[in-house]
Amino acid sequence: MEKDAIMDYEYPDLDPLPSINQPEKIPSCDPTADDMLYHISITAISLVIMLILAILARRTKAGDKQKGLPGLLSPVNFLDQTQHKGLAVAVFGVLLCKLWGLLVSPNPLPFTTDAKNKQNWVILGVFYYPALYYPLLACGTLHNKVGYVLGSLLSWTHFGVLVWQKIDCPKTPLIHKYYSLFSSLPQIACLAFLSFQYPLLLFKGFKSSETADATEDLNSSYYGDYVKKMLSEKKSRNISTSSADKPKLSQRVRDAVKSYVYTPEDAFRFPLKLAISCVVSFITLYQMGLVLISLVVPTIQTARYGVDEDIANVLAGFQIILSPDKREVVRIVVYYMWCVEVCYISAMTLSSLVNLVLLMHSMVLHRSNLKGLYRGDIFNVYNCQRSLRASRPALVCWMGYTSFTAAHICIGMIIQTFVFFLCLLITVFLVIIPILQRQNLIVFHILWSMWPFWLMILLAVLFQHITARFCFIKKTAGTHDLNNRGNLFLLTYLLFPVNVLIGVLLALWRLIITALFNIVHMGRLDISLLNRNVEAFDPAYRCYAHYLKIEVSQSHPVMKAFCGMLLQSAGQESKAAQRSRDAEEGIQLVQQEKKQSKLSGAKRARRRWQLLYTLVNNPSLVGTRKHFQAAESFLNGSFNRKNKDSKKEAEAAAGN
Amino acid sequence: MEKDAIMDYEYPDLDPLPSINQPEKIPSCDPTADDMLYHISITAISLVIMLILAILARRTKAGDKQKGLPGLLSPVNFLDQTQHKGLAVAVFGVLLCKLWGLLVSPNPLPFTTDAKNKQNWVILGVFYYPALYYPLLACGTLHNKVGYVLGSLLSWTHFGVLVWQKIDCPKTPLIHKYYSLFSSLPQIACLAFLSFQYPLLLFKGFKSSETADATEDLNSSYYGDYVKKMLSEKKSRNISTSSADKPKLSQRVRDAVKSYVYTPEDAFRFPLKLAISCVVSFITLYQMGLVLISLVVPTIQTARYGVDEDIANVLAGFQIILSPDKREVVRIVVYYMWCVEVCYISAMTLSSLVNLVLLMHSMVLHRSNLKGLYRGDIFNVYNCQRSLRASRPALVCWMGYTSFTAAHICIGMIIQTFVFFLCLLITVFLVIIPILQRQNLIVFHILWSMWPFWLMILLAVLFQHITARFCFIKKTAGTHDLNNRGNLFLLTYLLFPVNVLIGVLLALWRLIITALFNIVHMGRLDISLLNRNVEAFDPAYRCYAHYLKIEVSQSHPVMKAFCGMLLQSAGQESKAAQRSRDAEEGIQLVQQEKKQSKLSGAKRARRRWQLLYTLVNNPSLVGTRKHFQAAESFLNGSFNRKNKDSKKEAEAAAGN
Repeated sequence: MEKDAIMDYEYPDLDPLPSINQPEKIPSCDPTADDMLYHISITAISLVIMLILAILARRTKAGDKQKGLPGLLSPVNFLDQTQHKGLAVAVFGVLLCKLWGLLVSPNPLPFTTDAKNKQNWVILGVFYYPALYYPLLACGTLHNKVGYVLGSLLSWTHFGVLVWQKIDCPKTPLIHKYYSLFSSLPQIACLAFLSFQYPLLLFKGFKSSETADATEDLNSSYYGDYVKKMLSEKKSRNISTSSADKPKLSQRVRDAVKSYVYTPEDAFRFPLKLAISCVVSFITLYQMGLVLISLVVPTIQTARYGVDEDIANVLAGFQIILSPDKREVVRIVVYYMWCVEVCYISAMTLSSLVNLVLLMHSMVLHRSNLKGLYRGDIFNVYNCQRSLRASRPALVCWMGYTSFTAAHICIGMIIQTFVFFLCLLITVFLVIIPILQRQNLIVFHILWSMWPFWLMILLAVLFQHITARFCFIKKTAGTHDLNNRGNLFLLTYLLFPVNVLIGVLLALWRLIITALFNIVHMGRLDISLLNRNVEAFDPAYRCYAHYLKIEVSQSHPVMKAFCGMLLQSAGQESKAAQRSRDAEEGIQLVQQEKKQSKLSGAKRARRRWQLLYTLVNNPSLVGTRKHFQAAESFLNGSFNRKNKDSKKEAEAAAGN
Repeated sequence: MEKDAIMDYEYPDLDPLPSINQPEKIPSCDPTADDMLYHISITAISLVIMLILAILARRTKAGDKQKGLPGLLSPVNFLDQTQHKGLAVAVFGVLLCKLWGLLVSPNPLPFTTDAKNKQNWVILGVFYYPALYYPLLACGTLHNKVGYVLGSLLSWTHFGVLVWQKIDCPKTPLIHKYYSLFSSLPQIACLAFLSFQYPLLLFKGFKSSETADATEDLNSSYYGDYVKKMLSEKKSRNISTSSADKPKLSQRVRDAVKSYVYTPEDAFRFPLKLAISCVVSFITLYQMGLVLISLVVPTIQTARYGVDEDIANVLAGFQIILSPDKREVVRIVVYYMWCVEVCYISAMTLSSLVNLVLLMHSMVLHRSNLKGLYRGDIFNVYNCQRSLRASRPALVCWMGYTSFTAAHICIGMIIQTFVFFLCLLITVFLVIIPILQRQNLIVFHILWSMWPFWLMILLAVLFQHITARFCFIKKTAGTHDLNNRGNLFLLTYLLFPVNVLIGVLLALWRLIITALFNIVHMGRLDISLLNRNVEAFDPAYRCYAHYLKIEVSQSHPVMKAFCGMLLQSAGQESKAAQRSRDAEEGIQLVQQEKKQSKLSGAKRARRRWQLLYTLVNNPSLVGTRKHFQAAESFLNGSFNRKNKDSKKEAEAAAGN
């Protein structure tokens, strides 16, 4: 396979021997593990496993309130930063690959080969596959050895059958002979990860039966660490910004490179949903690239191998005579087709690389946005004041965020490949090939014949810059002021027509820059492609903005650290019976505690001080408090003293 | 002509009588006032006039320092808000029309008919025409009766010869028979304005010989009025923003409409350069529209009239058989071509209207930007902190701003017309004509066959919105919080594949929205088409930002009022001999006065107080002061008390 691929990209021989390279007919292949039988049995097995888990959950219910059936029905806590993310990410990866197969293959569901009603089967499949892979997630929810055993068995089955099928039928007639095999690689990888992860969890469970509880979200040390880090960082950050007013060029280049390379930080973990989005984006990138390559390249190759001497007659029919010798015509046509192929593959590769780099850049940006919002820098992130509260549109955007990321990368890659392909074609056929062959230098001839025009433009620009620098600007005692106003006005008038011509070039440059920027960033949800005053009209950016709202308002690390602290202090007072470990219940606990007025005065004072200190350092939390109206005047007072930034004040006022 | 035009857009008859509608041959027309002779003589006359003006200027030089030869060499003060703008605007209008003719006509210069070296002649013309029309501006500079008489004579000559030529030869073979006539209309209008304005100035000069001096920039009451208005407005503005936190929908709609309708304000006048840019944009709009119409529409019409029964055979050659009857085929083809023509004209009209509306909107935005920068709201205008100082790139951008506006409107209109034309074509041929004829409803059939898909998408979206509203958001005591987290997470997981499909639609919508927005706003320099973090990479916006810098730093009304006040007080002290009326000299005066330490203590104190008060209310002026470092600590102190906005502080710090 690889040798073939290398051969293909060598400069084609004079005689490509079309008879040998005939595209082989691939018979439709039926694997030993029939897909329909497999799906029926695995669905049944999954159902049984869910039943066992439900019974198990009902039994554990008495002991632990939170781990009963409701826990089974929500196996993923998307608002969690400390959870082990592997299981959820792998299941989402498998699901995405299945969705891809659903859309691409002619038989979306294994139960039927009815190609006429494909649409309806796709719709059914869209709901069937999430349900099918649900047990893979649910097995890990109970933190129970039986659950892990069942999970291991299930993931082994999925993995085994998929690998068996692919070994049985590596070639399929769909799109390209190896497309199906390559397309299922991410799915195989995800299932392999699951098959490895479940036994590992089981093994860990045997080793120390208490570790499962220790990984609980609110008891995790992460939130406490985050708060400590944040408080200790604050001063150093202020100093660095005030001392370095104008960063040097080398520093700026280093910062720019850093913003494209994601380096993990100890004191920051991604929310689960964002981690899933990144992996889903990566898999989409792979699948889209695979489809783009395998749809087009084999077709061009087939056409190239099929070129024979008839092509000379066909071209002569269109009055195109490349050469009097027919063999020479074949050689030229094959060479041109090879160039087209190389252009296409380069465009696709470029698009993939661009998207990969931007994915990294997005991750850095996500982190800085989240950290900014945690700090309350709402204006910097959104460019306007917004209240960080859960609302209907915000919740809908939050639910769809991961999916929208995948969809945008798809559309973005298609457009990018197309545009890059066109640009490369133009470059190759109008610039590179004419230079190599030293003929048909049309573009160069046109540009060369316009040399007086280019010279005039260049001289006019240079003249304006030089006069502006040396004649019209006067530097005295550190100030810059205008000089020779009369001559400046005269020059402005006289150069008006030349500047119109320069303006036309500038407008074309603007066109290219904006088009290219928007096309390159099409797949990114975290920046708006519109002007800053109307950026909310960009649906993708609007979705991202809403997503951040929910993420920050519901899983603010400081809030979680606070809830964890409350739960711990409640534990110290030996109220372990009413202990609950979820953030939601933690907040309810605050309300319960308010009713208990038997607490000692010193403890209440300490807690109030903790609360106040937290709120002052994290103004974005103010909006989420219940009885914040009462504290308004006091908080505003302290804000005026603590925070100089009036934007934060406005936000606090908006929150109130 | 008009009757013809109406006839053209009636539904074409079955038999369009091609023989009658043959395109008439227009003979090349030589006007009685030969262009070459006219140009040679007018150049000579202009030279003589300039010589007379120079002698006149040399004589007046003794009396008035500022009005000598240097004054003659800079007839326009572009940094002026109070000057009578008519003359400069009209001359720029004439110049733009000439530049247009230069690019379009095959003989750019009247001295030669050498079409081979057109490029070189264009380059020559680009410098020749500004020089030719220069005396028209210079005659008004001296504020002298002789100058006005010469100006009247010159403008009458230009106007008379142009009108005579156009009456002699209304039809030319260039592009369209009436193109040349219509294209020269703005030029005729501008020259007519000049021919009317010079006698008016002469008449005014006879009536009161002192009014010419009274219109001097710094003595004008405008700057004083501006300062008074600004100081009295400040309080009411603060009250209105604090009372109206959330404007109502009706108020917001009214504001949006207001931002598109430019209503003049007493206390604000446009800088001259901006006024010129607006008129130049308008003329460009007219000329571009004319070229777009007259290049394409007559060609389509000729093609339409030329359709005969041969077209049926030609189409049959491409296997397209519209109808068995050949007359019917002709009817259908003519009808389709008529549709294309209507689409094109609609697209062009739409593009013109869009640009007109955006021109109005731009004017409102220019005003608010200028006012904002005068106030020191640098962050709101630029979205970052910048120092408002004259610099090399800023000056170059300032010089080219008017020209760049014209060029961007050109390119913008071409792209808009093309894109709107394509969109209208698709709409007409895939939607409207199929509906009218009740056949070929391909688009509708495809959409209809996909109804289960649309239904699923609709239901999924509705379901998510309804559950988000009623199940997952809990409103308690004014706060919004999440509820039923388990079910929310479950739903998010299950709807992942559906949301990918919704995301694809969203991505397409994003593509359309961003492309349309950028294409529509292509002609506007005052907004960036890029994301807010990289908006400086948009060359057009960068130019506008730089332009504003120079405009604000050099012609701040408060600074001018201050200089005017200084000059007046100097006048009161009977130092009329050293009086100078230019802003530049006003500033120098401040430096001179510092050296004169003989002033009484009370007066110095009053002046210092005036200076300080002005600077505190206009922080953007701080950067333009010479010895501002000394005042830094004091100013910062007063800023902290006066301005709550920390951004302004940062700006003051950057300025220092």
